[in-house]
Amino acid sequence: MNPDASQYAVSIQYDRRLYREDIAGSVAHARMLAKQEIITEEEAAAICDGLLAIRAEIEAGEFPWRPELEDIHMNIETRLRERIGPTAGKLHTARSRNDQVATDLRLYAMRSRQRVDEAIAGLQKALLARAGEHSGVIMPGYTHLQRAQPVLFAHHLMAYFEMLHRDRARFAHCRDAADLLPLGSGALAGAPYPLDRRFVASELGFSRLSANSMDAVSDRDFLAEYHSAAAICMMHLSRLAEELVLWSSQEFGFISLAPRHTTGSSIMPQKRNPDFAELGRGKTGRVYGHLMAILTTLKGLPLTYNRDLQEDKEGFFDTEETLLSTLEIFSDMIGAMTVNASRMEDAAQRGNMLATDLADYLVGRGMPFREAHGVVRRASEHARSLGKEVHQLTLEEYRRFSDLFDSDALEISLKGSVEGRDVPGGAAPRRVQEAIAAAKARLEESFDT
Amino acid sequence: MNPDASQYAVSIQYDRRLYREDIAGSVAHARMLAKQEIITEEEAAAICDGLLAIRAEIEAGEFPWRPELEDIHMNIETRLRERIGPTAGKLHTARSRNDQVATDLRLYAMRSRQRVDEAIAGLQKALLARAGEHSGVIMPGYTHLQRAQPVLFAHHLMAYFEMLHRDRARFAHCRDAADLLPLGSGALAGAPYPLDRRFVASELGFSRLSANSMDAVSDRDFLAEYHSAAAICMMHLSRLAEELVLWSSQEFGFISLAPRHTTGSSIMPQKRNPDFAELGRGKTGRVYGHLMAILTTLKGLPLTYNRDLQEDKEGFFDTEETLLSTLEIFSDMIGAMTVNASRMEDAAQRGNMLATDLADYLVGRGMPFREAHGVVRRASEHARSLGKEVHQLTLEEYRRFSDLFDSDALEISLKGSVEGRDVPGGAAPRRVQEAIAAAKARLEESFDT
Amino acid sequence: MNPDASQYAVSIQYDRRLYREDIAGSVAHARMLAKQEIITEEEAAAICDGLLAIRAEIEAGEFPWRPELEDIHMNIETRLRERIGPTAGKLHTARSRNDQVATDLRLYAMRSRQRVDEAIAGLQKALLARAGEHSGVIMPGYTHLQRAQPVLFAHHLMAYFEMLHRDRARFAHCRDAADLLPLGSGALAGAPYPLDRRFVASELGFSRLSANSMDAVSDRDFLAEYHSAAAICMMHLSRLAEELVLWSSQEFGFISLAPRHTTGSSIMPQKRNPDFAELGRGKTGRVYGHLMAILTTLKGLPLTYNRDLQEDKEGFFDTEETLLSTLEIFSDMIGAMTVNASRMEDAAQRGNMLATDLADYLVGRGMPFREAHGVVRRASEHARSLGKEVHQLTLEEYRRFSDLFDSDALEISLKGSVEGRDVPGGAAPRRVQEAIAAAKARLEESFDT
Amino acid sequence: MNPDASQYAVSIQYDRRLYREDIAGSVAHARMLAKQEIITEEEAAAICDGLLAIRAEIEAGEFPWRPELEDIHMNIETRLRERIGPTAGKLHTARSRNDQVATDLRLYAMRSRQRVDEAIAGLQKALLARAGEHSGVIMPGYTHLQRAQPVLFAHHLMAYFEMLHRDRARFAHCRDAADLLPLGSGALAGAPYPLDRRFVASELGFSRLSANSMDAVSDRDFLAEYHSAAAICMMHLSRLAEELVLWSSQEFGFISLAPRHTTGSSIMPQKRNPDFAELGRGKTGRVYGHLMAILTTLKGLPLTYNRDLQEDKEGFFDTEETLLSTLEIFSDMIGAMTVNASRMEDAAQRGNMLATDLADYLVGRGMPFREAHGVVRRASEHARSLGKEVHQLTLEEYRRFSDLFDSDALEISLKGSVEGRDVPGGAAPRRVQEAIAAAKARLEESFDT
Repeated sequence: MNPDASQYAVSIQYDRRLYREDIAGSVAHARMLAKQEIITEEEAAAICDGLLAIRAEIEAGEFPWRPELEDIHMNIETRLRERIGPTAGKLHTARSRNDQVATDLRLYAMRSRQRVDEAIAGLQKALLARAGEHSGVIMPGYTHLQRAQPVLFAHHLMAYFEMLHRDRARFAHCRDAADLLPLGSGALAGAPYPLDRRFVASELGFSRLSANSMDAVSDRDFLAEYHSAAAICMMHLSRLAEELVLWSSQEFGFISLAPRHTTGSSIMPQKRNPDFAELGRGKTGRVYGHLMAILTTLKGLPLTYNRDLQEDKEGFFDTEETLLSTLEIFSDMIGAMTVNASRMEDAAQRGNMLATDLADYLVGRGMPFREAHGVVRRASEHARSLGKEVHQLTLEEYRRFSDLFDSDALEISLKGSVEGRDVPGGAAPRRVQEAIAAAKARLEESFDT
Repeated sequence: MNPDASQYAVSIQYDRRLYREDIAGSVAHARMLAKQEIITEEEAAAICDGLLAIRAEIEAGEFPWRPELEDIHMNIETRLRERIGPTAGKLHTARSRNDQVATDLRLYAMRSRQRVDEAIAGLQKALLARAGEHSGVIMPGYTHLQRAQPVLFAHHLMAYFEMLHRDRARFAHCRDAADLLPLGSGALAGAPYPLDRRFVASELGFSRLSANSMDAVSDRDFLAEYHSAAAICMMHLSRLAEELVLWSSQEFGFISLAPRHTTGSSIMPQKRNPDFAELGRGKTGRVYGHLMAILTTLKGLPLTYNRDLQEDKEGFFDTEETLLSTLEIFSDMIGAMTVNASRMEDAAQRGNMLATDLADYLVGRGMPFREAHGVVRRASEHARSLGKEVHQLTLEEYRRFSDLFDSDALEISLKGSVEGRDVPGGAAPRRVQEAIAAAKARLEESFDT
Repeated sequence: MNPDASQYAVSIQYDRRLYREDIAGSVAHARMLAKQEIITEEEAAAICDGLLAIRAEIEAGEFPWRPELEDIHMNIETRLRERIGPTAGKLHTARSRNDQVATDLRLYAMRSRQRVDEAIAGLQKALLARAGEHSGVIMPGYTHLQRAQPVLFAHHLMAYFEMLHRDRARFAHCRDAADLLPLGSGALAGAPYPLDRRFVASELGFSRLSANSMDAVSDRDFLAEYHSAAAICMMHLSRLAEELVLWSSQEFGFISLAPRHTTGSSIMPQKRNPDFAELGRGKTGRVYGHLMAILTTLKGLPLTYNRDLQEDKEGFFDTEETLLSTLEIFSDMIGAMTVNASRMEDAAQRGNMLATDLADYLVGRGMPFREAHGVVRRASEHARSLGKEVHQLTLEEYRRFSDLFDSDALEISLKGSVEGRDVPGGAAPRRVQEAIAAAKARLEESFDT
Repeated sequence: MNPDASQYAVSIQYDRRLYREDIAGSVAHARMLAKQEIITEEEAAAICDGLLAIRAEIEAGEFPWRPELEDIHMNIETRLRERIGPTAGKLHTARSRNDQVATDLRLYAMRSRQRVDEAIAGLQKALLARAGEHSGVIMPGYTHLQRAQPVLFAHHLMAYFEMLHRDRARFAHCRDAADLLPLGSGALAGAPYPLDRRFVASELGFSRLSANSMDAVSDRDFLAEYHSAAAICMMHLSRLAEELVLWSSQEFGFISLAPRHTTGSSIMPQKRNPDFAELGRGKTGRVYGHLMAILTTLKGLPLTYNRDLQEDKEGFFDTEETLLSTLEIFSDMIGAMTVNASRMEDAAQRGNMLATDLADYLVGRGMPFREAHGVVRRASEHARSLGKEVHQLTLEEYRRFSDLFDSDALEISLKGSVEGRDVPGGAAPRRVQEAIAAAKARLEESFDT
């Protein structure tokens, strides 16, 4: 064989990651073959013992990986033959590479979801802890990166809790999508043996059997879904990263990242750069790219298995790794950052953020909202021309714009503004406290159906 | 205003599609405001009557659309003012454009899911009908586009039923993701009024309230999920399209598409081109592109609402339209195509597709599978050199490769091969019959949780 | 014909945009047919007159568009027949829809490049004007969104000039890629007539002929390149947009966008949101999406023409429109924004931005850079602990960290720092002046080869 | 430092690939520093000798890579210090990591283009050789995967030559885009030393200097362009792969891939699967994905350098490797495949492919093309009803449809059809011969400007 050609198809450098799943699948298959009397109990025992010994070898770092055997399946199968002799060949009875690899990937995806779920929950916990710790801090809430209305810093953090909660739900769906045993589908048409597929499913923890063998060997939907869930989660992290970068700029100054999450400059001695937040934001590209890759690869393939599908793994593993490590770094970053409450509150004092409250005040006195909005806009412009915030105008000044203003208009404050937003999900401190309390319970929620 | 600048932000040409949702949301909001005594019952009645009259105007094609008012919200609001006077201004009490448009989009997404679900089920029905009709036809099953093992044409069609079943489940998840009322979140911090958000949710058919106002106005996950579900569904359709194109080629000749699904050539008088299948395959690009677009747009946005989000609509509407029309065309195409059973069966006779069965025969007589595989590979090569299929060898010829062959090896046939794959999900006719029967029930299944 | 099926293939709603190119191509083709005596001069004259009359009809808004004729070609051809009778049929001699539409698209792409080139140059001019106008203003230069070293605002603006210059070069390559006549390739194999392809090319302004008819009818590389150039250009605009959003935030306060480029809030009377910058940033998604769409559509298509290719147009037109309008808006926005020089200079005074200059000062006195870097880092930390900037330390304080410091270290200033970066492309005012002068000449540069 | 955080930022596992470029850049920088008397000649000599020794160490596999030093730059710099002592620190004078890594990447991209150019030319040569070898073989030309008109197999192969020729031109543009020296731009503002940037450029083979330091350290356009060129090239290869898969199917049977480019099945002994063509097609996804990744990463980044940019390398290297290996495999595959000329010619006899010629025959006798098209369409349908090809009708049968038919209509043949398409770029054998001859010259063409 031409060595280049051989290299081109080799996948062992990345699919060795599937060794646990591959061995688990083979053990379950062998047991079932014995149970159905397709092979003998002795043969099954020899196969299973051999496989478990191989697993131990791999985990001890003593397995002789052979690239010339191309993939994880042939590496293990060949090693099994070396260990137990020709009986090893019986393991491939009633099984094809096509249903075998699909089984491995599905097992891996289910386990991966567990790892991702824990990592997301880890970041949720970090957010929750900081929200609880700084529950009284007021900061500017932004729309269009313009100061809009005062909010609690805790409320802002809890917005990310919500995003991550949805991410966990999405990954739970991915698990459901993966939870289906393809083994028994053979190369494409099913196997001509009296298999007990239910038994295998139960051994491996699958709750459903594939219903169509041709679909089963060519279906990678569960991976496309996983990539999509990961892309959305990374999008959330890119938003959080953007905020960490903004907040730790000199202009905002709302937080200081811990030294271990910033790096200096090779040339500018004074710099503390938020490199880890930036890296996380940048890695969004990679995860979006892998989503696009799997979709492109699957486009237009006729049934059933085509070798194009070998491309399903490397991006998947890289996405998992990227997501897990980014979640861990971000958890640590959130937990370790210093919150500069006074900078936040100073900023909240500026930006005419009580304008909406003034308008609502006028509405409370009977003015239609649209009209009140115009009154306050004009008052804000007037205040700006005086170098003041709108809530710093005197009663006399207010009255130039509407005689509905009375002395209680002067009592409008950041704190009052926040407290007034007392609707479910709103910025009011008691609502945020409720949300934090509820979040603790929701963290424990199981998404499994 | 600079006319170009004004044009740049105009969305009325596409967001008018939201008129039903926008009006429904406003009606529910007005009723709640009255219920909570924020406005009077009379005001609410005037607003609701006005809105319903506007809806009628729109549906009668008599609404005076004004691009200079930019979007659907201002078009309706302005018209309401024309109809009922300044009371119209009260509708905007305790509501922002930010929570309003998020509500509209979520309502639209829930309704869109219903339309898509029906369209997918329509294609499933078409597949099911053809599978039932041609339940005895044997065709070559392919891996790597090489003939592999004989299967039933019905089994092949049912593989697509499975894919579409998963698509329906995915769109049900999209509905769940959309099913959450953002109204009451105000611009970002919640509204300073004693709102009854549960009442509004119930009026509009939402089962949950948003739990964080800052998240609620900037969350478009439900759209990203919708795009992802649509991309996976189009990927399935691109695979079906590829097969329709292949099958209707002169080389395969397995089907003839109905005249209404082919077009002639402007220059080649004899051509009947499968243009609709090709168009469907080509449109996969558009749907993948819209997925990438929304993910790109959302990347790195700080909280909360940013105008970038206006870009969430046009791709979404185009994806819905593309998906619905492609599903409808494909349903019609599957229903109307002619199945050339004899071409399929002729093809199934060739390609040495019974080789696996011969190997399994040897396994049945005690040979390990790996060894049997080698024996039959050599026999196949010998048969090829004689210009025969491997199952056309004589017993004498078989015995040159292994003396485990006996006269019953000569009885191996396409029909026997198919019947032998008698596992759940397998190619055996009785399994396929079971699958078809089960599918009928699954079609009626509700995916709602 | 099933009406839905017919709708699915209709392209007239978007491909009518090609009418000028379609008519130009037909006129050139007809003249050539006459020149080669394939049709008579009289027939050609009738055809050309008819086509020009049709163009006038279209431009007057009087053309009877008929969706049932599906595309621009059949609409024009049918109208021609109505106008000049059966002679119209001769226009299709030696031509196929496949080479016709490829010709139209290439002509359109070449003309589009001209429009895009002008729009990019427009934005370059706006940047250049503002750079010239504010050539002395110092602002903080950022890396990692941390203040790093002082730069001229003009230098920062000119960075975008460079990006846009590259964009123009890329679009010039796109023009080259489009500049090749496919007409004469027939449906796929060339036409069986003694055509003069050079004549047609010269009539239409193409400088090359396609060299392989099968490639010519299925090549859409020039569109993929165009999409790629547009995506990179939009990426640049998204970066500029991000900066405009940052700079117009209360935290930065470096610029104020003109009222016509901001919008108010429906609920917050004080807001001036940078909606147009945000919209431009958001539209990056759409343009990236169309790139992914065309690449997906083209993936895996066998030769030659396939109907999938009809999907090449809508995204292309949308990308052109998005790019042109975004460039125009951004030109206007840059031209109309107010520059708050004092805010920039105040910010430049803070952030220890002279630390690198202090390190370079030590290097000038013989200390290796790595060591100097450490000295200044420690001095910066010390200054921070005193609430000072590093350049505000006294000589005595400096000397605690190194005795190489002398009184001239106290003269290090923002202005001196900027002036010191006197390398080609550097931040020094005289270099920036040179760059501005050179840019004026480069604006006039032709990218055509 | 938290070990996880440290891992997250480590790039040495992939950026070590830049060692040659990093060392070349440092050597040129050190020489220039000495030339400008910023460091002494002795210092420069020590630095350069040290660097060259390090390069030798790396190439001998003896370099002590240290992940804790994170990247290639610090690994080399630290090693240099170990070898030559504190003088090593002077190498960083007037240089930042930001302009250093940009220089490395640009050098790498220019060299990569050379490798890719050769690999593309290799595939072009393989196509050219097979086109020359089988220059007389007629096969069906397809549109819509329907047989359309006869063409030469050589003509079909040469279509791919054209695509690849464009790819080479695109990669030449990428080289031009990369060909610009950023060194001297410092961290962002230029270096405060009297550098001779022209000297460095000339040492390294760059023909231009960056014109704006802020742009220079944050510009990755040249990588985005490279990814785009690679994506288009992979798209071409995906089309070729699709054809190889189709052609080697039993249904087409036009070619047999060499045994080394097919693999057997683990379960079906008779299979010869075109795995390498499928893998190449599948890998299109990966390359599209990396393009989308870099564009996503760059979206919305403010100036200047941000750590997000570290994500520019891994996808780039993977794309290069994928492209090079796919081109090599495909060259070998094309060179080694067996062409089944008789299967092609048999197929060409069927499919009514002479219908266009019959229509052109009628046009030659004065009938407008549109009318002739209708006549032949009806004749084709009649022939089909008789189980004949249209060119097998008798003169009498022809005359039923038009009395313009005469006995010479019976002489219409595949060979005549092909020969008749005698236009530049057409299917006529003499044109194809010309194209092959011209291609040989074009292979040698330099794309450099």
